[in-house]
Amino acid sequence: MNQSVAFTLDDIDAFLRRDFPQLYVHGEIFSVLEIGHGTCRMRMDYHESQLRPGGTISGPSMMALADVGLYVALLGAIGEVPLAVTTNFSINFLKKPDPCPMIAECRYLKIGKRLAVGEANLFSAGNDGLVAHVTATYSVPAA
Amino acid sequence: MNQSVAFTLDDIDAFLRRDFPQLYVHGEIFSVLEIGHGTCRMRMDYHESQLRPGGTISGPSMMALADVGLYVALLGAIGEVPLAVTTNFSINFLKKPDPCPMIAECRYLKIGKRLAVGEANLFSAGNDGLVAHVTATYSVPAA
Amino acid sequence: MNQSVAFTLDDIDAFLRRDFPQLYVHGEIFSVLEIGHGTCRMRMDYHESQLRPGGTISGPSMMALADVGLYVALLGAIGEVPLAVTTNFSINFLKKPDPCPMIAECRYLKIGKRLAVGEANLFSAGNDGLVAHVTATYSVPAA
Amino acid sequence: MNQSVAFTLDDIDAFLRRDFPQLYVHGEIFSVLEIGHGTCRMRMDYHESQLRPGGTISGPSMMALADVGLYVALLGAIGEVPLAVTTNFSINFLKKPDPCPMIAECRYLKIGKRLAVGEANLFSAGNDGLVAHVTATYSVPAA
Repeated sequence: MNQSVAFTLDDIDAFLRRDFPQLYVHGEIFSVLEIGHGTCRMRMDYHESQLRPGGTISGPSMMALADVGLYVALLGAIGEVPLAVTTNFSINFLKKPDPCPMIAECRYLKIGKRLAVGEANLFSAGNDGLVAHVTATYSVPAA
Repeated sequence: MNQSVAFTLDDIDAFLRRDFPQLYVHGEIFSVLEIGHGTCRMRMDYHESQLRPGGTISGPSMMALADVGLYVALLGAIGEVPLAVTTNFSINFLKKPDPCPMIAECRYLKIGKRLAVGEANLFSAGNDGLVAHVTATYSVPAA
Repeated sequence: MNQSVAFTLDDIDAFLRRDFPQLYVHGEIFSVLEIGHGTCRMRMDYHESQLRPGGTISGPSMMALADVGLYVALLGAIGEVPLAVTTNFSINFLKKPDPCPMIAECRYLKIGKRLAVGEANLFSAGNDGLVAHVTATYSVPAA
Repeated sequence: MNQSVAFTLDDIDAFLRRDFPQLYVHGEIFSVLEIGHGTCRMRMDYHESQLRPGGTISGPSMMALADVGLYVALLGAIGEVPLAVTTNFSINFLKKPDPCPMIAECRYLKIGKRLAVGEANLFSAGNDGLVAHVTATYSVPAA
């Protein structure tokens, strides 16, 4: 595996704004903190539309954070290719998140010619107790 | 299993508006078409914020539809209990959805004292080709 | 999807004996009851090595039954191709099986050019209560 | 979380022989290398019955290794309680294993009052490339 970063932090912001405008409809809530070769740290501030009763961040919001974080981490490995497609996404919810921003730490277990399998660990910002754990598979387009 | 419906279609709308206001921030995009004992048909119209490049409905939007549909189906079996919590959610994406509303057909495989396991099949409205398949586990609060 | 059966019940027995001799080390415990285009009913008699404390059939034995059943169902659709490979296998255990043979009812949700996604429902023979539910993905070799 | 080890390496061998005799029907192929509070390293030698065409270790054998390893790791945290039950088991197969013994490195992400969620990384002995990744949920009996 070539360990160079195919996509820089400078590239990623422009890319997301152009190709994922829906990430910005609630304002600037998603931000990429770090990107590497198949790795990414992503932050999600929270917005009223993501809360469930009791003020907790909804499951689907956490799934969105992990999915976009893993997508960005894949770009960090293989660059801006025609769209990779999520084929499987599985999440275990482990504890209630704090009412604060969330961080997803994403990395790939495998990046193959056809399939890439990644893992994301989700935390409440400033709290190292794991909130949720994700594994997901992306179908990588033929070169 | 008692096959009566614990929650009617009349109840559910008021419940969702009160306890899940975030479902309505984009307008009236979610609607419950049918509810039974552990079953539910739910519809999601689409909104710009759910689209990905190419005009396709995003994965996280489909996850949100399945999660709320399965939650409603559980209410149909056990009634308005203190919040059940999603513990595991797993989705296989099977084909690209059409650019139109989506339907989730939800049903439970098991509703136990502690855990309920449900399944959702997602379709584009008017097209019977399966778009995605979900299994999810909910932790049921002690009576 | 061509609905013809690519592999008959007559073919499958010879195939399994030649390519999966390990299925027979405990005797004749696996048998294919029906095969169709992407469907299969498979039976597993039980053998001491599969039991857990309390006389119940072990989880890994159920996983083996579902995996081979889904493999056979795929052969029923695409014929005897170079080996398909399981890429993801996910099982929900729903209730304790009876101490008797088990049946897996297998069918595919999608058979694509690269990936096939199938589902298996596992029952104790003669009892229609669902014991376990499986979804699995197979990577289909290029033609 | 109490970090003491509830079950020692000395205890575990006697426990497995008494309660999981089926692990030994092919001889001494499973061995616990290390056990900690919610962690375990387990080794599986291979036996003809686990091989698939091409001499590769079968998927169900890897699932059995991960399931027993995670069970042992849970004993290391909560001790010899009435049986914990696997409720969900999900595996991603990442690369073909070498024809040699396999190692499972198991650890828990959460050990709650009702549910414990663990992760296992599977390797071929002497090769640090990840062969498979497992997440599994166990229902913990009430104290």
